Amino acid sequence: MKKVNLYEANDFSDASFKRLLVHDSPYFKILNFNFRAGQELPLHSHNIEGQVSMTILEGEGEFMGKDANLSAKAGDVLVCDISEPHGLRAKSDLRLLVTIAPPI
Amino acid sequence: MKKVNLYEANDFSDASFKRLLVHDSPYFKILNFNFRAGQELPLHSHNIEGQVSMTILEGEGEFMGKDANLSAKAGDVLVCDISEPHGLRAKSDLRLLVTIAPPI
Repeated sequence: MKKVNLYEANDFSDASFKRLLVHDSPYFKILNFNFRAGQELPLHSHNIEGQVSMTILEGEGEFMGKDANLSAKAGDVLVCDISEPHGLRAKSDLRLLVTIAPPI
Repeated sequence: MKKVNLYEANDFSDASFKRLLVHDSPYFKILNFNFRAGQELPLHSHNIEGQVSMTILEGEGEFMGKDANLSAKAGDVLVCDISEPHGLRAKSDLRLLVTIAPPI
């Protein structure tokens, strides 16, 4: 068993979003991204098999997609194929938890 | 892309914890469990390959293990093998997000 507290292990930066590798194994990779209002994870995709989940722990923003954006707020879980363009833009300080399976 | 808001899609029950299947695919299974104070997901394990992550979204309690328990609070992410005994006991109303890869 391994435990990490995201609120203690990762913080925010005015320079760019802060990325924390929470876990990496043959089964999944878990990452935490903290954004100041206005920061973003740009739209991107990888031409491989697998899916990604993006969970909003705190804050508001929007999930970015190829054709449209979706509002993002605490409690939202978005799932998409890794090959599908995805990103996130923060409108307030925002904590995001990402799980990638299988890991990239 | 598929989006679910856990706070809107799942609630609490005095009778027992409430379980929401958020996502199921060949890559991972995502579940949300909501507990009233005092409710628990009993210690259990499955003799198969893979890992499970347990993220506390709200509330306080303890992660249960075979030999010891660990405190659980908002922002905690616990990862263990699916074959390793794990469970959760809520000390306040608590929202838990679980990801299992590969899915059971």
